[in-house]
Amino acid sequence: MKTSDLLIAANTLWVVIAAVLVMFMQAGFAFLEAGLTRMKNAAHIAGKNVLIFGITSLVYWAVGFGIAFGDGNAVIGTHGFFPSTDALLSVGKAPYSFFSTIPGAAAYLFEVVFAGVSLAIVWGAMAERAKLWVYFAFGVCFTLIYSITSHWIWHSGGWLFGLGMQDFAGSTVVHYQGALAALAGALLLGPRIGKFGKDGRANPIPGHNMPYAVLGTLILWFGWFGFNPGSTLAVVTGDKLGYFGYVALTTNLAAAAGALGGILSAWAILRKPDVSMMLNGVLAALVAITAASGFVAPWAAVVIGLVSGVIAVVGVLWVEGLGIDDPIGAVAVHGMSGVWGTLATGLFAVPALAANLATGTGGLVYTGSFHQLGVQAVGLLAVGVFTFSSSFGCLWAMKRLWGIRVEAHVETAGLDVSEHGMWGYPEFYIPVPGGYGDPSTVLTTHWNDPGAHGSKSLEPRVHPDRLDAEPEPA
Amino acid sequence: MKTSDLLIAANTLWVVIAAVLVMFMQAGFAFLEAGLTRMKNAAHIAGKNVLIFGITSLVYWAVGFGIAFGDGNAVIGTHGFFPSTDALLSVGKAPYSFFSTIPGAAAYLFEVVFAGVSLAIVWGAMAERAKLWVYFAFGVCFTLIYSITSHWIWHSGGWLFGLGMQDFAGSTVVHYQGALAALAGALLLGPRIGKFGKDGRANPIPGHNMPYAVLGTLILWFGWFGFNPGSTLAVVTGDKLGYFGYVALTTNLAAAAGALGGILSAWAILRKPDVSMMLNGVLAALVAITAASGFVAPWAAVVIGLVSGVIAVVGVLWVEGLGIDDPIGAVAVHGMSGVWGTLATGLFAVPALAANLATGTGGLVYTGSFHQLGVQAVGLLAVGVFTFSSSFGCLWAMKRLWGIRVEAHVETAGLDVSEHGMWGYPEFYIPVPGGYGDPSTVLTTHWNDPGAHGSKSLEPRVHPDRLDAEPEPA
Amino acid sequence: MKTSDLLIAANTLWVVIAAVLVMFMQAGFAFLEAGLTRMKNAAHIAGKNVLIFGITSLVYWAVGFGIAFGDGNAVIGTHGFFPSTDALLSVGKAPYSFFSTIPGAAAYLFEVVFAGVSLAIVWGAMAERAKLWVYFAFGVCFTLIYSITSHWIWHSGGWLFGLGMQDFAGSTVVHYQGALAALAGALLLGPRIGKFGKDGRANPIPGHNMPYAVLGTLILWFGWFGFNPGSTLAVVTGDKLGYFGYVALTTNLAAAAGALGGILSAWAILRKPDVSMMLNGVLAALVAITAASGFVAPWAAVVIGLVSGVIAVVGVLWVEGLGIDDPIGAVAVHGMSGVWGTLATGLFAVPALAANLATGTGGLVYTGSFHQLGVQAVGLLAVGVFTFSSSFGCLWAMKRLWGIRVEAHVETAGLDVSEHGMWGYPEFYIPVPGGYGDPSTVLTTHWNDPGAHGSKSLEPRVHPDRLDAEPEPA
Repeated sequence: MKTSDLLIAANTLWVVIAAVLVMFMQAGFAFLEAGLTRMKNAAHIAGKNVLIFGITSLVYWAVGFGIAFGDGNAVIGTHGFFPSTDALLSVGKAPYSFFSTIPGAAAYLFEVVFAGVSLAIVWGAMAERAKLWVYFAFGVCFTLIYSITSHWIWHSGGWLFGLGMQDFAGSTVVHYQGALAALAGALLLGPRIGKFGKDGRANPIPGHNMPYAVLGTLILWFGWFGFNPGSTLAVVTGDKLGYFGYVALTTNLAAAAGALGGILSAWAILRKPDVSMMLNGVLAALVAITAASGFVAPWAAVVIGLVSGVIAVVGVLWVEGLGIDDPIGAVAVHGMSGVWGTLATGLFAVPALAANLATGTGGLVYTGSFHQLGVQAVGLLAVGVFTFSSSFGCLWAMKRLWGIRVEAHVETAGLDVSEHGMWGYPEFYIPVPGGYGDPSTVLTTHWNDPGAHGSKSLEPRVHPDRLDAEPEPA
Repeated sequence: MKTSDLLIAANTLWVVIAAVLVMFMQAGFAFLEAGLTRMKNAAHIAGKNVLIFGITSLVYWAVGFGIAFGDGNAVIGTHGFFPSTDALLSVGKAPYSFFSTIPGAAAYLFEVVFAGVSLAIVWGAMAERAKLWVYFAFGVCFTLIYSITSHWIWHSGGWLFGLGMQDFAGSTVVHYQGALAALAGALLLGPRIGKFGKDGRANPIPGHNMPYAVLGTLILWFGWFGFNPGSTLAVVTGDKLGYFGYVALTTNLAAAAGALGGILSAWAILRKPDVSMMLNGVLAALVAITAASGFVAPWAAVVIGLVSGVIAVVGVLWVEGLGIDDPIGAVAVHGMSGVWGTLATGLFAVPALAANLATGTGGLVYTGSFHQLGVQAVGLLAVGVFTFSSSFGCLWAMKRLWGIRVEAHVETAGLDVSEHGMWGYPEFYIPVPGGYGDPSTVLTTHWNDPGAHGSKSLEPRVHPDRLDAEPEPA
Repeated sequence: MKTSDLLIAANTLWVVIAAVLVMFMQAGFAFLEAGLTRMKNAAHIAGKNVLIFGITSLVYWAVGFGIAFGDGNAVIGTHGFFPSTDALLSVGKAPYSFFSTIPGAAAYLFEVVFAGVSLAIVWGAMAERAKLWVYFAFGVCFTLIYSITSHWIWHSGGWLFGLGMQDFAGSTVVHYQGALAALAGALLLGPRIGKFGKDGRANPIPGHNMPYAVLGTLILWFGWFGFNPGSTLAVVTGDKLGYFGYVALTTNLAAAAGALGGILSAWAILRKPDVSMMLNGVLAALVAITAASGFVAPWAAVVIGLVSGVIAVVGVLWVEGLGIDDPIGAVAVHGMSGVWGTLATGLFAVPALAANLATGTGGLVYTGSFHQLGVQAVGLLAVGVFTFSSSFGCLWAMKRLWGIRVEAHVETAGLDVSEHGMWGYPEFYIPVPGGYGDPSTVLTTHWNDPGAHGSKSLEPRVHPDRLDAEPEPA
């Protein structure tokens, strides 16, 4: 066996494992988002991550991967749709000549999980009030939008790549872009019932399970070791052996600094060391280091992370202050911090590292710090205009044609019972009027009772098993 | 260092990581099963996965691995029991001459986690009513049964392998076989109290925590990237570099299609987009693609997954309609879909891929589509007869000799407090008569109070800490 | 490409993946510890793992890694602080000449996650009553203490390494040491309110969520496949290809035996098969096999695991009997079992395996079984004196100067609402007097209400959303 063949096998091993770690981030988002929202929507919120990853996987296989990484022009890939087995098993050949270190199948796997993460971010800001079918329809639209900008920035033939834009693992492509669509969705949906008072002041809607949110964050941190280091797409980068280990180090340092930045700025600004703000700090730091992780020195990773922790806290408050209801803080954590990370790469990138990567991934031109900042800004602007306007347009059309928000009684009863015909926690039966377990909103939860489920037949009635179970009013 | 040595080291790296991913599927089953059953049994259901994986690990080390993969005859392995350090460190030598790409230790690790998954499936259908000691006893029996059929199908000397049966990663060996034992258990145990009414109609017994079930499913999807792709046992397969990446792709496409197949057929058939049915769809698709993942084209993976999603929904309803109480749907999801996957491999396998694998894993004969379907059916029949009858026989004997089902008052109070002397959620104290937290069934939960725990001394009494905590009856 | 370069790349791949698995153990500790403590502290307990891993990551980057693995003398590393990019990208050169198989960055990543695990253990025994700032301050102190003893035992220039001490992956360095600090903390904090009655007899304080504890344990088991096998730091060890697979096998066998040892001894001693004791058995076995995993035969791994399972049960009871309140059993599981594992390595180590490792990791002298036992005991004594006294000293000074334990009303209300200004489960509103959800301890949970949060402004008042939600007293 030739060592060059063995190298390809080793690269594939690394990229597939990294992809698997990133895929697991769906569990991270599921638990982060379910934890930071209410009990009555928990099954819906957690379950939608399974649904949307399924949708993305199929759409990206059919056309997205070809749009993003198929051979094509500066704007779009025009080959590689519904890829054949042969295309998926070859290395560095049409229709995916971009990938010279791994076979097409591993490349699909690595790229599709990124698309899945970007789509997961979208729903954070739309949580607890969107209709179920919107997940299907906008899931398809967004996967296409995402694939186009991926081509611009990541494919060596893309126009932003040609300008020298640096986005190592997707602060712009994945996070900022997801947040732009999330913002469009939050604006078109409007805030949840009760989020803002008549005076416009925000009311607290605390998430129902902080341990879930912690687990979600730790799963995301874990998965990010695939996200950033895996983006080397190889175990040898330029002349550096195991360069992905260095990328893992900058990633970890930024996340650690983000935890401290988040909890300390929450302590200073809010006068309490809020746990959810610490988690936001970690995630914002991971988002920011995503663009920079392969290009910067360790100290810069710490700075990027610390600043991100502050951005998370200030950003969440700012978005809320604007009257936008973003239940899990996607706009601040993924959007603002994604912008910060993309610009910080321009500020802090080390020429020697960028040059090394250029050899490894085939063509990146490092163009110096001041100029680079400008290039990064151009990229942010272009993606900002394209992704926000196209996402807003899609959702606006859907809203006008069919409506994208559930009715008030559905939102009040919760999406679990209203949209899916089941409670997320059928036994956590706590008689809070109008809230979880209120008998006037309890439906039967079983498919054997065809008259009582589905959002069209929402007729509140008491679950028979529960009838004797309530404490009598005194 | 020779490249052939480095290749073995890289193979071992891949197989060990894959094994670790599969091991983590125990957490997936723990949370899937705990989520789909009731609060009063949550600690028992989750904890039993730790117990059974412990049992399997030891039994498989002692004798199972030798039976399955030791050198022997067409029916059983006769060498390699209680393996020595030397045997575990050598590659391609007696007593495990079957494994030519990795050392014996890595092979043990990869194979034992498969045995653990198969055993985990068994308990799904037996949940909420089996005695604790049955887990010990039948865990040993099933590990032996499983090891024998593994030898038939996976070992190059096995008789079904010789016929050309294709079961890439175990739709038959792991899933169908687990479901057969599950069915035997469900029949011998009978349904849970209250599952079927006097008219025979099934009553809903909803699982207590849907986010747990979602997390469990996503962990299983994650772990399946070890299950199927790891079954290449090498980073180079035939002349294909990183072929496991292709196996990961077909696996992911099938799972994605299964999610859609499950939720859409639930929407159509049950008139609600049930979250648990979507999860069943994912799992059924992963089960089905398990046999086929290394042999089929991407489009075939999508078809296999979509059909599996429908099978999950229809199958669960059908089993319930037959009066069989299978709390987590193991018979449909792992059994029926396992049969579908095994037959679909016969229908859709691509000769070129099968030939490639033949070189890689040492001898598989691909014999063409129509004939292949027949071979697959023979394998299903042989395993069906052997595993169902031997499992039924073991459990029947245990039932006659000592009883395998807990007493009614134990089942009503819940296995946590009755079998283990503790609540799963001691603070979720909700005064539902006869249900979770009912003071007449609350026991003390501590080992310092020797008079009050253990199933033999089940004397319902009020936990002292709780005495003042209940709302007074009006 | 040279095969020696490819080998380094493959080593790095393995070590980075192993590090990522170990990093995920923070999620395991978060859920194990949150599950074994009370609802009112759940967000605090889970969240602190994010905080402390952040602190360790930064301190270890700044100075810890240099102290532990920088070039230096027999007592301490004196180079490699605030490492440069160049130092992190080179292999086997100053300041980290110890690492000859991987670059510095991968080494940092692998070692920092071990420091994080050791620190996580510390807080187990201090749970539910320490002030938040202590996590920051003692987190820094302990990381420094830990780094010093790491140098003694693991660095080839360290004085205990020179004596021939064998601690493959850290039964002593990581677990025993964490438990020593945990013991110091538990002694200085004193028991939780209500833990011991006036007669000195222990009262039960059951953990609030056993499925969390099960998930935590399975995550830890999963992560341990990075912890022990990753400690080969290479894919080829001496003349053994993929030796880490053998290490994974001994690790798994011990854990499996520990599950059985734990549940069976609980059944025998406590007269109930306690689930949490089974989990303790698994963890104690993993702790014990950590020192031995690279050195012993499979049968010895089973023996080590079984004995550990018994130690876990007896040890937890013994610690409690001494009047020490260790909420998750850290002293027994990590301390006593860490001692057992370190000594068992002396008893059971196989010369051939140790010699093989000596070649692989550069210098370990295997000195024979009776002598080895003595060496192991010397190591335990030295670490015991140093770590316990320095940890006790740090915490004692903090206690005298500022106090390390929260006030009684804070402890009673719970750390979530008192220290962080939020509930962990805001909707699990169960009116248990003085307990979770008692309106007299419910605070508002939002940052928009500046008068009501932060531990300094703890003024119990009813959450407005809750006011109508309580059942009226009869």
